[in-house]
Amino acid sequence: MPASSLKAFRDPSSVAVVGASDDQAKWGYWLARGALSGAHRRDVYLVNGSAATVQNETAYSSISALPGVPELVVLCVPPRFVTEVVREALAAGVKAFLGITAGVLEEEALGAMIRAAGARIIGPNSLGLFDASSSLQLAWGHFSPGPLAIISQSGQLGSELAILAARAGMGVSRFVSIGNQLDVNAAELVADLADHEQSKIIALYLESFTSGVQLVETIRDLSLAGKTTLVLTTGASDASQRLAQSHTGSLTSALDTVDAACRAAGAIRVATPTELVNAARYLSVAAKPASRRTALISDSGGQGGIAADVAAVHGLDAPIFSEQLQRQLAEILPAGAAVSNPIDLAGAGEANLDVYADLVEVLMSSGEVDSVVLSGYFGCYGSDTPAIEARELSVADRMADIVKAAGMPLVVHSMSSDSAVVARLWADGIPTYPGIEIALRTLSLAAQLSASPGRVLGSPEQKLAEPESGYWQARAFLAELGISAPEGRLANNRADVARASEELRYPLVLKAGWLEHKSEHDGVKLGLGSAEQLMAAFEDMQARLGDGEYVVEEQDIRQNTVEVLVGARQDRDFGPVVTVGAGGTETELHKDISVELAPVDHATALEMIGRLKCLPLLQGWRGRPATDIQALAAMVVSISEAVAANQNITEFEVNPIRVAPEGALAVDALVLTAAAVNA
Amino acid sequence: MPASSLKAFRDPSSVAVVGASDDQAKWGYWLARGALSGAHRRDVYLVNGSAATVQNETAYSSISALPGVPELVVLCVPPRFVTEVVREALAAGVKAFLGITAGVLEEEALGAMIRAAGARIIGPNSLGLFDASSSLQLAWGHFSPGPLAIISQSGQLGSELAILAARAGMGVSRFVSIGNQLDVNAAELVADLADHEQSKIIALYLESFTSGVQLVETIRDLSLAGKTTLVLTTGASDASQRLAQSHTGSLTSALDTVDAACRAAGAIRVATPTELVNAARYLSVAAKPASRRTALISDSGGQGGIAADVAAVHGLDAPIFSEQLQRQLAEILPAGAAVSNPIDLAGAGEANLDVYADLVEVLMSSGEVDSVVLSGYFGCYGSDTPAIEARELSVADRMADIVKAAGMPLVVHSMSSDSAVVARLWADGIPTYPGIEIALRTLSLAAQLSASPGRVLGSPEQKLAEPESGYWQARAFLAELGISAPEGRLANNRADVARASEELRYPLVLKAGWLEHKSEHDGVKLGLGSAEQLMAAFEDMQARLGDGEYVVEEQDIRQNTVEVLVGARQDRDFGPVVTVGAGGTETELHKDISVELAPVDHATALEMIGRLKCLPLLQGWRGRPATDIQALAAMVVSISEAVAANQNITEFEVNPIRVAPEGALAVDALVLTAAAVNA
Repeated sequence: MPASSLKAFRDPSSVAVVGASDDQAKWGYWLARGALSGAHRRDVYLVNGSAATVQNETAYSSISALPGVPELVVLCVPPRFVTEVVREALAAGVKAFLGITAGVLEEEALGAMIRAAGARIIGPNSLGLFDASSSLQLAWGHFSPGPLAIISQSGQLGSELAILAARAGMGVSRFVSIGNQLDVNAAELVADLADHEQSKIIALYLESFTSGVQLVETIRDLSLAGKTTLVLTTGASDASQRLAQSHTGSLTSALDTVDAACRAAGAIRVATPTELVNAARYLSVAAKPASRRTALISDSGGQGGIAADVAAVHGLDAPIFSEQLQRQLAEILPAGAAVSNPIDLAGAGEANLDVYADLVEVLMSSGEVDSVVLSGYFGCYGSDTPAIEARELSVADRMADIVKAAGMPLVVHSMSSDSAVVARLWADGIPTYPGIEIALRTLSLAAQLSASPGRVLGSPEQKLAEPESGYWQARAFLAELGISAPEGRLANNRADVARASEELRYPLVLKAGWLEHKSEHDGVKLGLGSAEQLMAAFEDMQARLGDGEYVVEEQDIRQNTVEVLVGARQDRDFGPVVTVGAGGTETELHKDISVELAPVDHATALEMIGRLKCLPLLQGWRGRPATDIQALAAMVVSISEAVAANQNITEFEVNPIRVAPEGALAVDALVLTAAAVNA
Repeated sequence: MPASSLKAFRDPSSVAVVGASDDQAKWGYWLARGALSGAHRRDVYLVNGSAATVQNETAYSSISALPGVPELVVLCVPPRFVTEVVREALAAGVKAFLGITAGVLEEEALGAMIRAAGARIIGPNSLGLFDASSSLQLAWGHFSPGPLAIISQSGQLGSELAILAARAGMGVSRFVSIGNQLDVNAAELVADLADHEQSKIIALYLESFTSGVQLVETIRDLSLAGKTTLVLTTGASDASQRLAQSHTGSLTSALDTVDAACRAAGAIRVATPTELVNAARYLSVAAKPASRRTALISDSGGQGGIAADVAAVHGLDAPIFSEQLQRQLAEILPAGAAVSNPIDLAGAGEANLDVYADLVEVLMSSGEVDSVVLSGYFGCYGSDTPAIEARELSVADRMADIVKAAGMPLVVHSMSSDSAVVARLWADGIPTYPGIEIALRTLSLAAQLSASPGRVLGSPEQKLAEPESGYWQARAFLAELGISAPEGRLANNRADVARASEELRYPLVLKAGWLEHKSEHDGVKLGLGSAEQLMAAFEDMQARLGDGEYVVEEQDIRQNTVEVLVGARQDRDFGPVVTVGAGGTETELHKDISVELAPVDHATALEMIGRLKCLPLLQGWRGRPATDIQALAAMVVSISEAVAANQNITEFEVNPIRVAPEGALAVDALVLTAAAVNA
């Protein structure tokens, strides 16, 4: 359904509240009261089966008794009455419902009835909706207009976000509690914000991502249009991950996949409502830093030191300044001031408040950082010594000019939380927080947005034969993808084994190729150094495991290899997903993995590898030569494209890949197709 | 010096402020003003070289002009006058100084002069001190009395702590800005709080830990007396760690050692001033939870889910409740409520506020958790619907009674930050925060205090011969400590090698025993399978490395071994320290280590091993048998005792230790003594 079908939920020309009440303990009181606050803009009808007036307004006994057909009907009646009210409304021609009532029986049947009539419903079990642009308040509570749109699967969590935003002086453009999503879903409501001018930042709380693929595209489009989405979720959907059969599946959590989806969408995931509101407030006034390189300034060595430690915790990089920049800074500051980063003012601020702005100016034009953080007493001078407040305000304004000219953010941690200067800094586009950890955490989140601006997922159209199950077939599939594997031979009997032993280079490996978990069944024998050893291994395996497609391979004996795994699968919510991680026997211990939505291009594959903790091993550990990371990245790309192009491949795991200076070799592989899984 | 010598800094009978001023831009103004606020309790003399009155009080031209000898002299004069003022004061018999002035020249000479006269000084470069119990305000700013003592190496950071505490409604008992610690140091000032009744919680900010050993003892004594210390520091002292020569040294950071010191002292380290004040405020009203097991309650599924995720981030454990407890909870709650942990009220709170207290009561008497966390709307009912505020307050009081009876904490995250109920919760001993992350982080810190209540470090009196340098000698030292190593022989020549090759079990290892970094010089040859191979290896090594004490050893070929390292060293600040960590070639990659002050007992050694990420490898990885963790712990104990008893051992590293199901073997070792390092 096109987003325009949601117009009735944005600015209906008339609203009826069914179950309107005079009793403050009932939702019907608050919904009626809220609806009436928009009576200057639209017809508001209150419906109550027994009262002639509600809140001093005429009350109608039923929808059929109304003087007109309301564009939107709000359902606040007890659960047992909902179906009857909806039936009556549909008969009257109503096309949109907001279901507040929780605990509706036969919800599915209700949804079917509404859809059959070409109508829509938000909820049931919604806490309501609010739209600042159209004076539409169909929710409990008080909302001030502002740039934040809140779409929440939990009504109370949405309320918490609105309350925290209000406390931070930030208003709400739109609030939708999506309830049980019987019909209208989160992705549609997010898409509906595209032309909702007041909504600049979107707070999205979801517990499930059933429309994940659609959501990613929608959010990316909004992101490209300059609207940033902040995602809050819980790990509740971990259960869905337990369905994954492979090794890789057990290594990734639902949140890893949500994070991958956020990167693809150009959104960020935050951990708590407070973090979300801090980030939203930042984004409402300040630019995202182009990188994680930041300059730290403090008028206290202690505060500067703590800022440096906390910056590191949040993945910000405070590089040591160049000698030239240090000289420039030293000219501004007294002898003994620290100028390498963090900068310690050594009393210069007390002597001359302009020093703060001077430093920001030099740093922002240095090319050595993409943000500046100021921690300490600035923001307190004027409130402690009123005579200098005007000076401090003018320095704040000067910093704002520098920030605007540089197009990079200045973030302040001030020991004051509420001075006139702190208010001015915010008004000037300089986010200012009463704690250094909030300042730096928020800057870090903004940097994360710059690093992942969203990407369009290609749709590779590979015309590959669908892989059949079995290791020999997986090897053929790897070959089609251009992925190198050791030389090998299929061996169904002693004669095949004898031929392989003549044609291949020792040592050899024997594998029971048809087994999904070869190692667990002792179906892999390494280090076979002679024809006799190979034949003995074959006879032993055949005696234990029976006939089947055995595979003889040359064992990879290259030096300086690092074992890595690459996996890909179809995620129930987000579609194809690719994973690269540390391989070997301790894989599950370290859980050192990167996940992205598939397909990925070469640059993204390199970024994934770059995030691994085992990267130093690949780069040449303790004097060893660097391995062929480019070849590994190419494999990640191929595998991601294969799974994106073939939805029938449910899981595809290459583990281990042995990456050496001379290239990467796929030493084992498993392909599961929908057919195989269903069989 | 005994703590009593600091009486002049706690409650002097008279104070002189030298450099007292009428100019608000000068420290001398604020110090004089602060000193005068205690004039009802002590004589306050203002000294100013040129004015007859200061702040409408008589001003004296010099210390010699005073009518009496002040017990404490505050130095607020410009740096160039400090030495002269001190000389005059010492001549007059002054025994205590507070040095506010920064940038004093020839500080060391000043210190010597003061000490020679049997006098003491706090500072210079102190921001001042405050004592609520004696109306002693010798610092800029305003302090309200309360339970928090602040001792800070950074004046401004101390101020930030006081400001944040005041903002949280928490007062200060004592404030000391210790400045440059020319004489009186942090440990003395902390010790001086032992009998300072108003001080219940101590905030300690330090950038260096020069009196570390003394500080650990002092803090532990305070902890045993019920006063908790919260430590804030920076990573600035990392440079000191670079001095460490061994492998282990490079794996540990200064902060690891500070954390170990905190555990031994029964203190906790926090990351920021905000975190410190949140924890202090918690500790001022609530009990520490006996464990990390917590029950999570929310009236919103979303908030409950986020609480569970955030709890996991902070290392809290939300166990699934027993079936019996789930049944009990289900009796209280409506059908459909989640009762396994987190608990979702499913609307029960709206229907009956007492449900909140009922749940807390059941959970606190269950024996299944040691704390309860409530997240959501509680604290807002009364402010949103005044008619029910009295009910909500009475439920808060009932919860307080339950909490007191159970002796375990209830922590609340409320969507209101300032309601009457939130204030009542604090007054009732129930910490309440406006964000779930603060609530859970603070509870986690309190749990950390319970887990590490401080321990008395034994002083082992081992009468061991001091080890000489060299691997053969290190082996002998291991034997003295009762640590097993592979069978081996010293071999200085071909004859020795031949004898060894007859007496030992193959495969063998040859090591150039006198080298500190054997592997780097190719001074280790493994896997020697025959007498010929051994002799060839000896001849090759001797040709390259020359004569020396070679060692032939039996190679450890046991199955299912895990490589671990144990190191110990003398820390410049904190004395003997012991480390256990993952060994092998990727040690530096994973930095998987535990550090404690030495010596440790067996239980502490087991705890150290229990914190390692590689613990699952030791416990039996992927179906392998469990290794002998007890034997490893015994080695940790022995090594920690050896270094604690022999201060001449600067570093002692056993790496790797191969831990197998049959026991632990020290396969390589390095002992560095002060003599060897100085040589």
